[in-house]
Amino acid sequence: MHILNRQQILAAFDAEAITALLKQGFIAYSQRRVQQPPVQHFLFEQAAGDCCIKSAWLEGDELFVVKVSAGFYRNAERGLASNQGLVMAFSAQTGEPRALLQDEGWLTALRTALAGRIAAELCAPPHIQAIGMVGTGLQARLQLQCLKPVTDCREVWVWGRNEQALAAYRRDAEAEGFRVLTTQDAAELAAHCQLIVTTTPSREPILQAADIRPGTHITAVGADAPGKQELATDLVAKADALLVDALVQCADYGEIATAYRQTRLTSTPIIEMGALLAQGGRLRSEPQHITIADLTGLAIQDLQIAKGVLAAI
Amino acid sequence: MHILNRQQILAAFDAEAITALLKQGFIAYSQRRVQQPPVQHFLFEQAAGDCCIKSAWLEGDELFVVKVSAGFYRNAERGLASNQGLVMAFSAQTGEPRALLQDEGWLTALRTALAGRIAAELCAPPHIQAIGMVGTGLQARLQLQCLKPVTDCREVWVWGRNEQALAAYRRDAEAEGFRVLTTQDAAELAAHCQLIVTTTPSREPILQAADIRPGTHITAVGADAPGKQELATDLVAKADALLVDALVQCADYGEIATAYRQTRLTSTPIIEMGALLAQGGRLRSEPQHITIADLTGLAIQDLQIAKGVLAAI
Repeated sequence: MHILNRQQILAAFDAEAITALLKQGFIAYSQRRVQQPPVQHFLFEQAAGDCCIKSAWLEGDELFVVKVSAGFYRNAERGLASNQGLVMAFSAQTGEPRALLQDEGWLTALRTALAGRIAAELCAPPHIQAIGMVGTGLQARLQLQCLKPVTDCREVWVWGRNEQALAAYRRDAEAEGFRVLTTQDAAELAAHCQLIVTTTPSREPILQAADIRPGTHITAVGADAPGKQELATDLVAKADALLVDALVQCADYGEIATAYRQTRLTSTPIIEMGALLAQGGRLRSEPQHITIADLTGLAIQDLQIAKGVLAAI
Repeated sequence: MHILNRQQILAAFDAEAITALLKQGFIAYSQRRVQQPPVQHFLFEQAAGDCCIKSAWLEGDELFVVKVSAGFYRNAERGLASNQGLVMAFSAQTGEPRALLQDEGWLTALRTALAGRIAAELCAPPHIQAIGMVGTGLQARLQLQCLKPVTDCREVWVWGRNEQALAAYRRDAEAEGFRVLTTQDAAELAAHCQLIVTTTPSREPILQAADIRPGTHITAVGADAPGKQELATDLVAKADALLVDALVQCADYGEIATAYRQTRLTSTPIIEMGALLAQGGRLRSEPQHITIADLTGLAIQDLQIAKGVLAAI
């Protein structure tokens, strides 16, 4: 069995090759060629932690994977990263363990950011004057990096609640070649940006319907469990078209879940990313449309990114 | 992170200490103090394989575990064991990986056999002239070994379909100090034995209601997925009392599932192992009763056996 640590994994990481694998994975998922059992969840209340276990096999593949990813939100007090996790790959011919990727949660963060890139390719308006980033954490940094091959825009507005975190984000984004504007007012960000990515674990909507101008695309990656919501229900209901990674997950606990349950999306086109990729089209039919991509995260992404890393070592 | 191989795990294995941990685990499960998400299943038809992922945390414990166990039934053709698998332990305080137990499926086999021992302690009649073992595989060997501390009986009848497998079992059981009688007629086995253990993945009942004499206890460990059944539905319906590891699993896909669905158990006492252990009693109230223990396997057993091994290294 190969055992790889974070450094070895990041050294073998090829964003272009893995983006292509992720697209194939989304397509296979939407074509029902992926065995992906329901996600297992743990809640560790006394430690402010949670954990989910995601598993997937693309039928016919040599490998299947089991991913354990945890978030322990007081780890910083101990000098540890909040995100923890690993990915295991097994032979689908014999059941033998083939690889242990001790990525410490990085593969989850990266495949989520690359899904944001794919969503932008499929949904963003043609002219982007500024990118809007809601949140100042690791995911907000990775999303920005992953958008660089998709757009020439090098101006970013970033929203956060904390001045220090905004200043730190500014330094990192400037090092990536961006002009950075910070704000604690999400409406101000929305007024300037045509491509917005929301990356927080918020349980209260941050962006309101009235904030968003025609011609805007929003990719929401924060809502990955019941109760999380970054976009107001009115905003979701107002969208002209919705992209989802998996309809079954998004309707259950994604960003669109509340609007879906309230039957406010019955006349909104909703398409799975894999279905749109297979068609070869784009989500947006009019420049003035408001579009939203709801990404809850799929085990097939974990399988594809693990395959990409293992192919490169 | 500790990484242990099969030899290290087996060297650290203390059956008495782990039996005590398993009992504590069954009690905690029945007291609803265990987080145990639904089992994930894969089916690899082209390779005649399957895999399940079981996870558990006993609330308050330092560790939680994720177990991957696979069965690939053509592995013997490649010179590999059919059972594959590993157990991972993580900190419930920080989410960090703590240990990887590369047990190749042994911990699952052992915790299943020790659950059989506990079932015998709780259910077997006081006088056992002969043990009956249905099946000739690894689990049939381990069950016999694990019964040695529970009974002085050293006579075993073993049932199998294959003469060679019966001869091989005979050699191994004789080496364990047993007088061994082999048969290809399950009714003959049942006529001689007061404590029977069924260990096969059969999808057709092997033991019939008419075969079983009053005063017999049967522990059935083979049925761990829908469609598997070793005992005739009439036999299950005829039992005077039933022990189950988890009512929710046994009623769904355990040995008692068919009789349960046919509402033929409405007047049969059914008790969870953990509830009976907490009470301190025994299942059998009359020497002439027929009793059955239905063991489908719980993730809490995987947690407890992993804890036991890790405590010993």
